[in-house]
Formats: sequence, structure tokens, C-alpha cells
Amino acid sequence: MIKTRFTEMFGVRHPIVQGGMQWVGRAGLVSAVANAGALGFITALTQPTPEDLTKEIKRCREMTDKPFGVNLTILPALKPPPYAEYRHAIIESGIKIVETAGYKPQEHVDHFKQHGIKVIHKCTAVRHALSAERMGVDAISIDGFECAGHPGEDDIPGLILIPCAADKVKIPMIASGGFGDARGLVAALSLGAEGINMGTRFMCTVESPIHQKIKEQMVATVL
Amino acid sequence: MIKTRFTEMFGVRHPIVQGGMQWVGRAGLVSAVANAGALGFITALTQPTPEDLTKEIKRCREMTDKPFGVNLTILPALKPPPYAEYRHAIIESGIKIVETAGYKPQEHVDHFKQHGIKVIHKCTAVRHALSAERMGVDAISIDGFECAGHPGEDDIPGLILIPCAADKVKIPMIASGGFGDARGLVAALSLGAEGINMGTRFMCTVESPIHQKIKEQMVATVL
Repeated sequence: MIKTRFTEMFGVRHPIVQGGMQWVGRAGLVSAVANAGALGFITALTQPTPEDLTKEIKRCREMTDKPFGVNLTILPALKPPPYAEYRHAIIESGIKIVETAGYKPQEHVDHFKQHGIKVIHKCTAVRHALSAERMGVDAISIDGFECAGHPGEDDIPGLILIPCAADKVKIPMIASGGFGDARGLVAALSLGAEGINMGTRFMCTVESPIHQKIKEQMVATVL
Repeated sequence: MIKTRFTEMFGVRHPIVQGGMQWVGRAGLVSAVANAGALGFITALTQPTPEDLTKEIKRCREMTDKPFGVNLTILPALKPPPYAEYRHAIIESGIKIVETAGYKPQEHVDHFKQHGIKVIHKCTAVRHALSAERMGVDAISIDGFECAGHPGEDDIPGLILIPCAADKVKIPMIASGGFGDARGLVAALSLGAEGINMGTRFMCTVESPIHQKIKEQMVATVL
């Protein structure tokens, strides 16, 4: 059993997160992650409407009584999705943990915090992590060059980024990008993180809604 | 005290290497590293001629009775330096540890091994590490995207490259790139390496022959 400020803060058994992944972060995977003692996130924008998100959260809760969260990724767009409505769906569903990513989440953080929701914000640079800390989030997911999704433009790998962030960030931090097994978890803890976020590794699980052939190809493709 | 196959094989107190750095790897720095219990490398090609290399090795030996090595970097060039003559200078000086880097070192490895010299070859990919292992080198320095020098073209950071290499390489492996303190050393050991190679960190030491203002700027430039 590894106890860190992260496991304590979020009430999970393991310092392991299945971060938001578009199309993959659905109730089936997230409830399996929760039942295994880690922290999974349903991806809000995978659901076509806020009402669908409410249903997906309900469906997840039917499969687990453990904590799980919802990811809300904020990206600039000509026709942005109705972020405020998704946010309301999250709050009204009684979700207590949110992962935000992308553009400055201030208004979302403020609203979530009013409802006692803990927020983890994904940051690709130390300066963004410090800015999120000032914004009032509860934890940082520090996101190296290895990470999928939107890993920023600084291209700093985790071996360098994690300790640099740990030197300055005071709130708990999990590390994202390049982690796939226990060796990586121990490395992340050594570098100053208090947990890891894994994506690809969870994409290859039985519960992940990805075609079996793609999972097999991912597992076969090793360096 | 951390004992690994690396410290045992090379007879050093700490699993820490100051790898070859052009212009920086001279007797002053290398002897200080050796006296501190780590493994330093004089860079052969920093010396204008093989005779100068012989003198530099002698000078280093006057300042330490601990083990140290010589780096020989093999790069394709229109007018290559006289590699065979540098190699002879290394062998005739009684050096027992060589770090090779760059283009396939087979003929150098063969000659060094005939003289009981241990060879560490720097590799930027798992396939290169396996090829060097077959070539008969004693240890691998696995070199991630973070590393300076000639870090290859695969751009795979150490968090991913080190465990992937550790899964396949049987001889001892040190990790290069992105390491600057004890947190990185512990991370490297967790990921499957048996030591680390540091460059930038040693460039900022008192003994490193770099302008003081540059050292100060490097220390000041943190993320």
C-alpha cells in the first residue's frame, strides 16, 4: 500500500489515475478502475449532450460505490460545446472530483469549489502549474512531453519537468506521460510526484471500448 | 552506499558517470569526479593530437589514483580524426575504461577488448543497445531524448526508453539525459538502469573549464 497526499485527498487505495480520454473514458472503464482502487475519469465531452453525461454518471454509479470523477477539457473553438451546462450536469450529479484540462479553468474551478468539488488541473509547464495553484485547484497533473492529448509546446520530458515542478508547486501533484507500470510509478514518486496518471495502459484493458485489434497492435508495438 | 552491477564492474563508489563532453572532459574535472567516487571520462577528441591525449591522461593520473576513463566518439566526417591513433594512445596509456559513442564501434571494441579494456557504448535506441550488446561491449549508456550531444532521431524520453531497454538488454545499463540530482538517480534505478550519466550538472562545477558567467546562467535557468 502506497499512501501519499494524493491517495488521502481523493480517498483512493492506489496513487494511480486513469485520466480523461475522449471516447474511452466511459462508465465501463471508469467503474472498473474505481473498483480496482484507482481513480478513473468519465470524459464529459465524449457524451453528446449534458443529459447524456448525467446518464453516464448514473450508469457508472450503478457499477461502483468507489470514488470516480469527470474530466472537463476546455479548448478554444469557434462553436464551443455548452461548457456551463456540462458543468451543471457534473455538479448536479453529485460528482466530487473533477479533472480539468486545457484553457484557463477559473470560472469552472470557482463554481466547482462552491459545491465542495475537488479539482485536478492538467498542466504542461511549471508556470501553468503555479498559475493553477493560485487559481485554487486542489492538485496538479503535470504533463510531460511523453503525454498524449494536448501536451503543450515546451516539449519538456517528465524526468526534467516533474522535479522542476515539485520544487515549486506546494499542492499534491500527479505525473502524466510515459507511465505504464510499477517501475514508472516508483520513478514518479522519486521525482516528487504523489501519483501517476496513465492513459495508453488503460486503453489496452478489457473494459476499454476500443477495437480488440487496436489494443493488440498497441501491446505488440514495443520499442 | 548504492551497489549495482555497474559500480561493481567499474570499481567506483557511486553509480554516477560524468560522460564525455567535448572541451569539458579534461584532467581537472575528470580527476575531481574520480576523487569523489564517480566515474569521469576524458574526451579524446578534445585533445588536438593523440600525443596530447597521452599527456592529458598522464596529467589526470597525477591528480587521482581512482579509476577514470576516456571517451571516444565516432562520427562520420569527410576528414575524420585519426581514430586508430587515438585508440592506440588510450591503450598504451593503460586506460581500462572507455566510453564509445556515435557510429558502430566494432573495430574499436575488438581492439580495446584485446587489451582488457571495459567498454560502455552510448545508445539512443533499444535496437542500437541490442546491437552493441552483440558487438561485445560491457555496458550500455541508454540515451533519451533529454540528452545532449547526439541523441539520435527517435526522440523517445528516458521514462519510456529506459524500462523498454531494461526489458531486453542483459548487460548493465546506465541512463543518460535529464538527470541532475538524487531524485533522478533513484528514478533511473527504479526504471531499470544501474547508474546515471550526467553532463550539464558537471558543467556547472568549480572544476569544469567553462566561463563562470555561463555556469551562473545555467544554474539560474530553471523551468
